[in-house]
Amino acid sequence: MSATENRYLEVCFTPALIHLHDISNAVVVVIDVLRATSSMCVAFSYGVKSIVPVATIEESLAYKEKGFLIGAERNGEMLDGFDLGNSPFSYMDEKVRGRDIALTTTNGTQAMAAAKGAAQVVAGSFLNLDALCNWLKSQDKSVVLLCSGWKNSFNLEDTLFAGAVVAQLKPHFEMSQLRDAALAAEHLYNLAKDDIDGFLVESSHRKRLHKLQIDKDIEYCLTPNQSPVVPGLVNGALVDLLKM
Amino acid sequence: MSATENRYLEVCFTPALIHLHDISNAVVVVIDVLRATSSMCVAFSYGVKSIVPVATIEESLAYKEKGFLIGAERNGEMLDGFDLGNSPFSYMDEKVRGRDIALTTTNGTQAMAAAKGAAQVVAGSFLNLDALCNWLKSQDKSVVLLCSGWKNSFNLEDTLFAGAVVAQLKPHFEMSQLRDAALAAEHLYNLAKDDIDGFLVESSHRKRLHKLQIDKDIEYCLTPNQSPVVPGLVNGALVDLLKM
Repeated sequence: MSATENRYLEVCFTPALIHLHDISNAVVVVIDVLRATSSMCVAFSYGVKSIVPVATIEESLAYKEKGFLIGAERNGEMLDGFDLGNSPFSYMDEKVRGRDIALTTTNGTQAMAAAKGAAQVVAGSFLNLDALCNWLKSQDKSVVLLCSGWKNSFNLEDTLFAGAVVAQLKPHFEMSQLRDAALAAEHLYNLAKDDIDGFLVESSHRKRLHKLQIDKDIEYCLTPNQSPVVPGLVNGALVDLLKM
Repeated sequence: MSATENRYLEVCFTPALIHLHDISNAVVVVIDVLRATSSMCVAFSYGVKSIVPVATIEESLAYKEKGFLIGAERNGEMLDGFDLGNSPFSYMDEKVRGRDIALTTTNGTQAMAAAKGAAQVVAGSFLNLDALCNWLKSQDKSVVLLCSGWKNSFNLEDTLFAGAVVAQLKPHFEMSQLRDAALAAEHLYNLAKDDIDGFLVESSHRKRLHKLQIDKDIEYCLTPNQSPVVPGLVNGALVDLLKM
């Protein structure tokens, strides 16, 4: 990866700001660490064939009739009538191997939709940190790290992961190719990296999930490099780009 | 200032996200450290009577005919035909004493417009840090720190100032009344506070202004507590709320 002129490495803190970025020649990394993109990574490392991100509950149900497994989460909770939720552990199951899944979540799949128009959309989480960064280095393209946030507001956990990616990719860009949000995310990651869970203890979404008693999920989602996959959108469905 | 329930202390990183905040009972602090809100603070400490923030160049010119001094900046530069620019030093002049000013800037006055609907709009910069924080503590209201950013994108210098305010106000709020953006801003301020200019050296707007050779402006704008004023909107014009 050379420091090609006009490339850039940017962080977009919420889907509501994606229109400010020219993504037509960029790889957009959709980030929803707690928990959509983490679960997607686990799913592919357990042999899922494809994941179709869908916007609505109704759309998911239509996919069920086509033979898909369906997953859904709203406001942190799994929904009745669905095969899978948004917990990474629900994807650690032989039943998912070789299957196609339709998934809708509060923030993650909405961010996927916002990234429409990018040269390539991929999913990032701590679980695939190194695999993702190595793949990004091989692309020689601009990179926009799109944090899903919480209902279009900034959140810390997605920002910390964006900062982790900036830290790895920065040597492959000129400093002038990084804007302020990328610098801020990297600073925050450097502050947090020795104890990410501790750093997030005061964060609002962390507290929201804590109320739902999914501490085990959180601990797992913050553990780097458990799933060496790169989920990427191909014709509207995520597949593991490392297996293509 | 008590930790009244339902109050909150929030940071909004750009005017493009202000719609996510309920500002109807909040004080919104508009922040454009480099340089609009810094210049406003200087202006009031040099005896300006009022500043009307206006959106367009044309609107400013109409105020000139009403006897106002007019100030304008676009893309970091002063405009021909105007009495004042966006440099704090242009307001350190006896000619401004007792005068009314109409001011339009790239980001700062646009952020003022975005804050319409707040219980109170005030202007913040490092120059009035302590005066502003003391006034905010006396209000017992929710506070939204609205960073002007650069053309609706996140910027570091406004975020660092927002973090400086969070650091002072936090003891007067419950931790549950702070959301992630406020926590992030405070972390970044704590990292930067011993050498804010050094911390900003890599930042994009800092570099943009450096190209315009206004290092003296920047150094001044990052110096806390030079202007003990609280510019606040009253009937569409900013006045020093400490003199009312």
